[in-house]
Amino acid sequence: MANPKRVLTPQDEDFPRWYQDVVAKAEMAENGPVRGTMIIKPWGYAIWERIQAELDQRIKASGAVNAYFPMFIPSSFLAKEAQHVEGFSPELAVVTHAGGEQLAEPLVVRPTSETVIGDAMSRWIQGHRDLPLLLNQWANVVRWELRPRLFLRTTEFLWQEGHTAHASWDEAQAETLQILHDVYDDTIRNILCVPVVLGRKTDREKFAGAEVTYTLEGLMRDGKALQMGTSHNMGQNFAKAFDISYTDSDGQVQLCHTTSWGVSTRVVGGLVMAHGDDDGLRLPPAVAPVQAVVLAVKEESVPEAQRLADALVAAGVRAKVDDRVSQSFGRRAVDWELKGAPLRIEVGPRDLAEGNVTVARRDQAEKATVALAAVVDQVPTLLAAIQTGLLAEAQARRDASTFDVAKSDEIDGPGFFRIPWDNLGEAGETVLAERGYSVRCLVTADGGVPTPDATDDLIAYCAKAY
Amino acid sequence: MANPKRVLTPQDEDFPRWYQDVVAKAEMAENGPVRGTMIIKPWGYAIWERIQAELDQRIKASGAVNAYFPMFIPSSFLAKEAQHVEGFSPELAVVTHAGGEQLAEPLVVRPTSETVIGDAMSRWIQGHRDLPLLLNQWANVVRWELRPRLFLRTTEFLWQEGHTAHASWDEAQAETLQILHDVYDDTIRNILCVPVVLGRKTDREKFAGAEVTYTLEGLMRDGKALQMGTSHNMGQNFAKAFDISYTDSDGQVQLCHTTSWGVSTRVVGGLVMAHGDDDGLRLPPAVAPVQAVVLAVKEESVPEAQRLADALVAAGVRAKVDDRVSQSFGRRAVDWELKGAPLRIEVGPRDLAEGNVTVARRDQAEKATVALAAVVDQVPTLLAAIQTGLLAEAQARRDASTFDVAKSDEIDGPGFFRIPWDNLGEAGETVLAERGYSVRCLVTADGGVPTPDATDDLIAYCAKAY
Repeated sequence: MANPKRVLTPQDEDFPRWYQDVVAKAEMAENGPVRGTMIIKPWGYAIWERIQAELDQRIKASGAVNAYFPMFIPSSFLAKEAQHVEGFSPELAVVTHAGGEQLAEPLVVRPTSETVIGDAMSRWIQGHRDLPLLLNQWANVVRWELRPRLFLRTTEFLWQEGHTAHASWDEAQAETLQILHDVYDDTIRNILCVPVVLGRKTDREKFAGAEVTYTLEGLMRDGKALQMGTSHNMGQNFAKAFDISYTDSDGQVQLCHTTSWGVSTRVVGGLVMAHGDDDGLRLPPAVAPVQAVVLAVKEESVPEAQRLADALVAAGVRAKVDDRVSQSFGRRAVDWELKGAPLRIEVGPRDLAEGNVTVARRDQAEKATVALAAVVDQVPTLLAAIQTGLLAEAQARRDASTFDVAKSDEIDGPGFFRIPWDNLGEAGETVLAERGYSVRCLVTADGGVPTPDATDDLIAYCAKAY
Repeated sequence: MANPKRVLTPQDEDFPRWYQDVVAKAEMAENGPVRGTMIIKPWGYAIWERIQAELDQRIKASGAVNAYFPMFIPSSFLAKEAQHVEGFSPELAVVTHAGGEQLAEPLVVRPTSETVIGDAMSRWIQGHRDLPLLLNQWANVVRWELRPRLFLRTTEFLWQEGHTAHASWDEAQAETLQILHDVYDDTIRNILCVPVVLGRKTDREKFAGAEVTYTLEGLMRDGKALQMGTSHNMGQNFAKAFDISYTDSDGQVQLCHTTSWGVSTRVVGGLVMAHGDDDGLRLPPAVAPVQAVVLAVKEESVPEAQRLADALVAAGVRAKVDDRVSQSFGRRAVDWELKGAPLRIEVGPRDLAEGNVTVARRDQAEKATVALAAVVDQVPTLLAAIQTGLLAEAQARRDASTFDVAKSDEIDGPGFFRIPWDNLGEAGETVLAERGYSVRCLVTADGGVPTPDATDDLIAYCAKAY
């Protein structure tokens, strides 16, 4: 039906161009008037809302509560943690005038809220009963981008940032890993269908001010990696800088241990590049704004199409009727393929005469003829199969693109390259960087997440990355 | 039980001080490090999340879709609509430096998104089939405040802003009123229990650039009014400034008619001042983060309290156990009164020995003894009664504080003063303003919402206002 060549640049021809095309043609986002900023259009935002809801539910289940902190931060705050200010300075946007006057102290638009939340924590935490303090915030942040790309790298982006304070290093470490596994990995793997590699960042790649950074790395269909989320154990670095301390049960004043963790609108870009094909997006049913579109082929099919859509909605499916019969059927079908709706149900006079409709799965090329009477019952099963299928397909693709190598000069081309960290090391990492590769993360010999101080038998996952 | 004198300044003594006290003591919000900014603490934010969810659901039901637009706006955009820039200039925050360099064109942090959304609409709308375009955005905005007050007037606040474009003036007007009634009035009256007066703003009070502004005015317990939301018909003012036009079915290019409408975190302040008493907040069950707190009186009551809380949660109630038995029972009871939890269920050994618990409604002074076996069944009924009761109480209070007067010098003291607009007029409005009163809105003789051009038999609601 669809002729992708007319609509999108094929992935094999020019993947970055394909990405740009599909984000535009699926009406997900476009550039804002200020360079580097992004307008998230309704289709893209509806996907983000689903991701937000899934993350928020898991964040709350982990015991964290939402709050909101101001986006304007006194510039002096950033300077309190040396590595932090050094890491962010080149990316800051600064407000110098407000209310018609020049400000005495310039204000930084938050690039992240460690500092303003650290300052609040130092006031909110007094005794050991105030711990742990588990906060999360949904917010916009700003990091000036010289080479912006929609969703992947934008000057302003949306995210959640968790910030927690604990009585001990062990508790902070447990929190860091709980978020990594139970919130992020669970959402990205089971909702977004992206089989991420979990591991520890090298010192070169870790967050400015963190003691240890854990990451979730997805493999895109062009063989490049994308960091989908990070979870940091800050140790006592921010606690020292902001005096986040508590009186323990013996009456002794102790510094807290803090963590922070975030996932941003960047994952929407990851979703596009992990599953999309030459016909457009392929959305996992769990985040698809429309899970099943019911396409009325002709004017006379509209009432039956509407009844079917209503029945699907009543059955808990996000279904929508497409009754734009004045536009060509083929063009509308292509449009829904572009937008990635998991199921397309075509309701036309010839099928209806035999009591049937045609069901097309977005994740497969074939169409099936299904009895109209059976379709409402079958849709949930089909959606579940698509959700499972997309993950399995992405997993197979990742496995086929993961290569074990012994020496760094074997790292060449798309995919993940696994190399013993002992064979690479920081010197090797620097050389790789000159060739455009980075160490995405370190894992243990059995593929697990290393402790912060583990040094033996680590494997480095290397790739070109977004 | 509670001794409010120790905790809060009584309302009669100093209402602004009471407000400040209760916002602090109920842990709703506090000042941010930059003057005029606000930290919304978890309890306050959880209330806002409930309000958001209620509004969002109704906004979507109205047919609008969510999107996200950048917060940085080229300063030239604001200048495109003369009244708009004039209205906002003194309140703007301006970014002059970013990415380590001075910017060629300073960026304004959005005080509202009319301009950036108008610019996008001019690109997105081509033909009549693209109309109506109904957009909504949840975002932070900045208006510099010289006299900030938590929730009520803060430099940065959170809100939703709807922006819609239509083919005709009638459709834009219908949208403006649909949002006013079906989204805002329904949420504020039935969820927040604030019986707002709906009316039209005078020219003096209307939004910069609007043709007509409708408002919802709540009466606070000190007899001052608070604007809880506004809905504007912009006519073609923004369509002209941003060239938002469409080709009609005859092939003629026509200017669109646009609307905008917003509700902000300010309503949280309104909720506090409309219902709170000398013991603290009184939250409507529909927005209470905890609808029923189950207070274990002693250590040995904890297991039964936990079982009861679990049973309530299973029954769909937002219930929470308070098992901090190392702290005094009285202090914990006062704390939950401060926080405004609608129901407090006290589980203590003496009651339990007789198979009972004690149930205290936050909206009334009395406590009742209830059989433990019956309490889960009774709680939903009690919550519904509190929801209805708070609205009825606020309605009675408002009615008792609404006065019909014939001449403007009779306008004196707290409450709403209804005066024929013919007896006041713009000259009278100016004189009133010098005495600290404003015309909150104009209504028709039968209390309805006037059309934009209605001039006869209008009644002006006057009050001191936040």
